[in-house]
Amino acid sequence: MANGTTPSAGHELTQTHPFDRAIALSAPQDADSRLLRGVTSDDYWNAVGPFGGVTAATLLNAVMRQLDRLPVPLSLTVSYAGAIRAGEFDILVRCLRGGRTTQHWSLELVQGSEREVMASALVVCGLRRDTWGVREALPPATPPPPPAFGARPGDSPRWLRWYREHLVSGDLYRANDHSETLSWIADAPARALDYTSLAAICDAFFPRIYLRRPSFVPIATVTLNVYFHAGQAVMDEQGCAPVLARATGQVFNEGFCDQEGRIWGLGDRLLATTHQVVWYRE
Amino acid sequence: MANGTTPSAGHELTQTHPFDRAIALSAPQDADSRLLRGVTSDDYWNAVGPFGGVTAATLLNAVMRQLDRLPVPLSLTVSYAGAIRAGEFDILVRCLRGGRTTQHWSLELVQGSEREVMASALVVCGLRRDTWGVREALPPATPPPPPAFGARPGDSPRWLRWYREHLVSGDLYRANDHSETLSWIADAPARALDYTSLAAICDAFFPRIYLRRPSFVPIATVTLNVYFHAGQAVMDEQGCAPVLARATGQVFNEGFCDQEGRIWGLGDRLLATTHQVVWYRE
Repeated sequence: MANGTTPSAGHELTQTHPFDRAIALSAPQDADSRLLRGVTSDDYWNAVGPFGGVTAATLLNAVMRQLDRLPVPLSLTVSYAGAIRAGEFDILVRCLRGGRTTQHWSLELVQGSEREVMASALVVCGLRRDTWGVREALPPATPPPPPAFGARPGDSPRWLRWYREHLVSGDLYRANDHSETLSWIADAPARALDYTSLAAICDAFFPRIYLRRPSFVPIATVTLNVYFHAGQAVMDEQGCAPVLARATGQVFNEGFCDQEGRIWGLGDRLLATTHQVVWYRE
Repeated sequence: MANGTTPSAGHELTQTHPFDRAIALSAPQDADSRLLRGVTSDDYWNAVGPFGGVTAATLLNAVMRQLDRLPVPLSLTVSYAGAIRAGEFDILVRCLRGGRTTQHWSLELVQGSEREVMASALVVCGLRRDTWGVREALPPATPPPPPAFGARPGDSPRWLRWYREHLVSGDLYRANDHSETLSWIADAPARALDYTSLAAICDAFFPRIYLRRPSFVPIATVTLNVYFHAGQAVMDEQGCAPVLARATGQVFNEGFCDQEGRIWGLGDRLLATTHQVVWYRE
């Protein structure tokens, strides 16, 4: 330490955000290493496995850790192949191909001596450049977020406590005639937004099916897609400010439904669009 | 032949739709085979490689060819890693994991002695079941398609000739204040819709950037995502009827833009939603 003091282990712990602990991966042996190791997070545990948003963020983090990646992610697709068990996992990272402006990565999260594939992902990174541009999509007219707001009601599943959310519109657990919700959301405690936390927020929406049905049915995300629309400078400007999150469902049919989400940042900027397919039991 | 006649080679050729020739793959050696071979299609050639929709359809076809797949695809994500060269390619198919209701596949399209990865894909297949359901999204109010309509104006790139398209709204190659188009589209000559042709149609939209800019700039699809919302019975009902295709772009920024599309079938049914990230030069 530059000033000669040594913080206690406890002090160090509080300086690391729970989200950063959850997505942490062991350092590559060298710049060429494409094998990373992580451990599931108790903090972000869901019903029968880790919160899918943290799994997505961890897979993205595996790419962000690569020294030879192009600067920013453009897209992330996660195939949730199996129920990840509590404990250690490995992530195998492959660079499929890279050019000057785009770079394609493939990832697998494996567990156990059989190296069962629990999740697979495709990530595209890119080099953003100064070009012509236009922002066509605009956020819904919404008053600014209240100065203080807390967690979503309830403390189960566990990962919910690590988000603050203020619901602007949408009635949960009711037989509504639409599934749209609009809410302000932020990490709790505060944490400056980055691509990994943005990816996780893309899976933090209240499941759409519970906007159409008053009672619980078992569900699971099958596949998640995230497109990142903002460059690094815009991400940096966002800091710890809450994002505006809008989600809808289009079709609930024969055991599968979808979710479409948009995440808006400061200055009416679209930070991410996200889509997922969800299995439901009945 | 059951009736004792032998059609000429030319006759056989006209009975096979150009699309089926384009996505054809050599038969697996046996039920366990996960290596398929194809050849790029001159018919569906684009500017510097195959039409991306046919590449997506070919990758999906590699899964549809697997004897142990679950009945219908739920999602398809394609990472367009490199410019596919004219000629032969191999597709390596892996079943990452399968359960009773979902099954996760990973694919790579490789070329050359170095087995360079030109495209990578994730496909999820599923077993649809009789469950509660609701259709939330509705198509825009549109008059029925004209009884006859032809190809999009122009015959370049080459793949365009294999689609009929009737533009309902949207002005191409103009500096519009939005990028939305609505059109009726169908394979030409007529071909009953299936999941592979639906996947290709998801990439057949006129590039959004040309709805906002009057002049040509080089573009390339970087990644494509398709969610299939209809089960087999609905797909079968569609037959050769044109689909209604709506597309918008949200953000054009720093060398990358997006496209969001919806494909509607008979009876106001949402057949697919699709998203893509597109690189543009300047």
